Amino acid sequence: MSEQTSQAAFLDDFARLSSFGATAGGGVERLAGSQEHAQLREWLVDRFTAHGFSAHFDAIGNLFGLAELTPGAPYVLFGSHTDSQPLAGRFDGAYGVLAALHAASHVVADHRRDGTAPTYNIAIVDWFNEEGARFKPSMMGSGVFTGKLVLADALATRDRSGVTVSAALEATEMHGDFTPPPLAAYGEIHIEQGRSMDAAGATIGAVDATWSAYKYEIIVHGEQGHTGSARMSDRRDALLGAAHLVTAVHDLIDHFDVDALHTSVGEFTVAPNSPVTIAREVRLLADLRAESTVLLDEAFALLQARITEIEQHTRTGIEVVSRSIWQSGPFLQGGIRLIERAAAARDLTHRRVKTLAGHDATNMKDTTPTLLVFIPSVEGISHNEREYSTDPDMLAGLSVFEDVVRELSEKGLPE
Amino acid sequence: MSEQTSQAAFLDDFARLSSFGATAGGGVERLAGSQEHAQLREWLVDRFTAHGFSAHFDAIGNLFGLAELTPGAPYVLFGSHTDSQPLAGRFDGAYGVLAALHAASHVVADHRRDGTAPTYNIAIVDWFNEEGARFKPSMMGSGVFTGKLVLADALATRDRSGVTVSAALEATEMHGDFTPPPLAAYGEIHIEQGRSMDAAGATIGAVDATWSAYKYEIIVHGEQGHTGSARMSDRRDALLGAAHLVTAVHDLIDHFDVDALHTSVGEFTVAPNSPVTIAREVRLLADLRAESTVLLDEAFALLQARITEIEQHTRTGIEVVSRSIWQSGPFLQGGIRLIERAAAARDLTHRRVKTLAGHDATNMKDTTPTLLVFIPSVEGISHNEREYSTDPDMLAGLSVFEDVVRELSEKGLPE
Repeated sequence: MSEQTSQAAFLDDFARLSSFGATAGGGVERLAGSQEHAQLREWLVDRFTAHGFSAHFDAIGNLFGLAELTPGAPYVLFGSHTDSQPLAGRFDGAYGVLAALHAASHVVADHRRDGTAPTYNIAIVDWFNEEGARFKPSMMGSGVFTGKLVLADALATRDRSGVTVSAALEATEMHGDFTPPPLAAYGEIHIEQGRSMDAAGATIGAVDATWSAYKYEIIVHGEQGHTGSARMSDRRDALLGAAHLVTAVHDLIDHFDVDALHTSVGEFTVAPNSPVTIAREVRLLADLRAESTVLLDEAFALLQARITEIEQHTRTGIEVVSRSIWQSGPFLQGGIRLIERAAAARDLTHRRVKTLAGHDATNMKDTTPTLLVFIPSVEGISHNEREYSTDPDMLAGLSVFEDVVRELSEKGLPE
Repeated sequence: MSEQTSQAAFLDDFARLSSFGATAGGGVERLAGSQEHAQLREWLVDRFTAHGFSAHFDAIGNLFGLAELTPGAPYVLFGSHTDSQPLAGRFDGAYGVLAALHAASHVVADHRRDGTAPTYNIAIVDWFNEEGARFKPSMMGSGVFTGKLVLADALATRDRSGVTVSAALEATEMHGDFTPPPLAAYGEIHIEQGRSMDAAGATIGAVDATWSAYKYEIIVHGEQGHTGSARMSDRRDALLGAAHLVTAVHDLIDHFDVDALHTSVGEFTVAPNSPVTIAREVRLLADLRAESTVLLDEAFALLQARITEIEQHTRTGIEVVSRSIWQSGPFLQGGIRLIERAAAARDLTHRRVKTLAGHDATNMKDTTPTLLVFIPSVEGISHNEREYSTDPDMLAGLSVFEDVVRELSEKGLPE
């Protein structure tokens, strides 16, 4: 197959992939374990099989495709995820799964044509529930795979309407009893979702480190009352306390250099959420990210002082019920240099970038030699229907990733 | 029946009434059109019948009980509502329905025993969906009855899970084709839900006016993005804009005398409400209440100025999509004096009070000569499981309300 033909085949497949859960605004909505997600994966199983990979679901709904060219050898694994946020872009995760499939199938096809075998067998993966939009936490499939999450806990997780992961996987026939083989290395390609590459005009990103993230689950406790008749000074309004907390989380950035700290509250749920009743409780998730945990510790100390003030000012109780820490960490130098060499060999501009977002590769890097490649996101827009990466960038990424698959399957990725 | 026996019967019935949808915290949860609400009303139909009232549902689920003692004469109507907020108190509405039933049944029983007939026939009512917790707007049953709401619109209203009022009424067999008779007057007794009577030590409140209320449905428009990777300065976070709006609505009170203005945001819904996605939209309901609309107009002008600042500061768009106005208004002097006379005759302390909360009587007063009696709420707590009114206060209210029923059924309520 000529490069032109294979590029056209990739773009055709990407258009088909983007049709599952397509939204009027040009994006996709494929929550983990939804019908749209299941329909996509049914198609993906066909594509795996057509390209000579045997398809297998494990117990947490990860979909693997295996090509065993060297009987008994460990595998190198490539992939990403196909679930999405609500009203999301069509590139996040899905691009990486399709690029892994095409890149790996080219390498496998070459071996089969030539009667050769690589050092390591080649597998592809579509991880379950990377987004965490429907079932928390995010990066669930790779979390179970790496032992960071307990399978039974993950399966028992419920969405807002009370459906468990287990029931969703059952209903959509997305699970099995496959035990993945030992791995020599893992590689992923993803869109940047930030704007540093777009701003710098770089086509290929070699991810050299992840940012640290502190995620807090917080409950603001108030007391129900009548919005009309209760005296203002008697009220203990959980929504008022939570509103102050949202602005306080945002304003933390003013204490640090521009762009050094990212903060947000993404989920925010009010009870009882009735028009004429003062809120008794707000549950929210606050998210602080920075390159170093030193800065995050400092930011959280500032937030704690604000929390005390807000409690007094609004007569509410603010309880930090859990904290998840994602430590920052470097990627392997061998992987970074491999990406840079591959980009340079194809005359593609490249730069080292950090990932501010979490990825399945962020989980995998802690248990398996892992590399992560980025392509640009136009204007850095993501988790939005307007998320966009150009065809030339997608194809450039695919070509680099094919080189990555080829080299990892021969040499692995030394620690 | 001795007064002691009839008081014990009332308290027994009140205990039974409180068992429908009872919560562990001593309150009730009986959303309009729920199974708990339907079970209560099934019991209520039995009680109506046992006391000699014929029971009828109209098309919007109002439950009427009629005692026709003077064939062809207009009716005087007494009642309140039995639906509740989530995790609410057991007195709000339910006390008034039961007091109306017992007071009216005493008067009717006396006539039947003596072979006499009043000027006006006597009816009782349990209005549908006064609370508006599940289906908006509140005071739906009396709104349709008074022609303020169109029946078809009310029936088509959906709760958050998409169930229509029509479907909920159908499923719980709470509707019929009853056409209520012409009315000469309406009377309601309710708990105050504020603390003015409790603080003043008054047992009976003669409501002389309603506060005005402005209710705004507001949408804060932002743009979805990734909470980790999007640059802070690029974000248009609808939740951040909405948080500023909540504090701005609260802080309006600082511009006016203490207790002159009540403000709140009771309902607040975030989209997409996902942990790692910046909110694209928040919908909220803001509620401003004061004695005069002049003050409310002034408060809203201040809020509009703040809205413009918040839009600029947070790069969001804030759209006021609807405004409902409840004009303040006086109750009839004849009704106020009737309540005061009845309280004085029984040596009960009394005072004139305003209602800050909306009631079915607030709807009724615009089309029918109406009076509204209050009994105290301990500490003014309401829309809360700890809502409380004492047995002596409930019984005092019942005795005054019986006098009200007696006099209105003889003389009506002159405008």
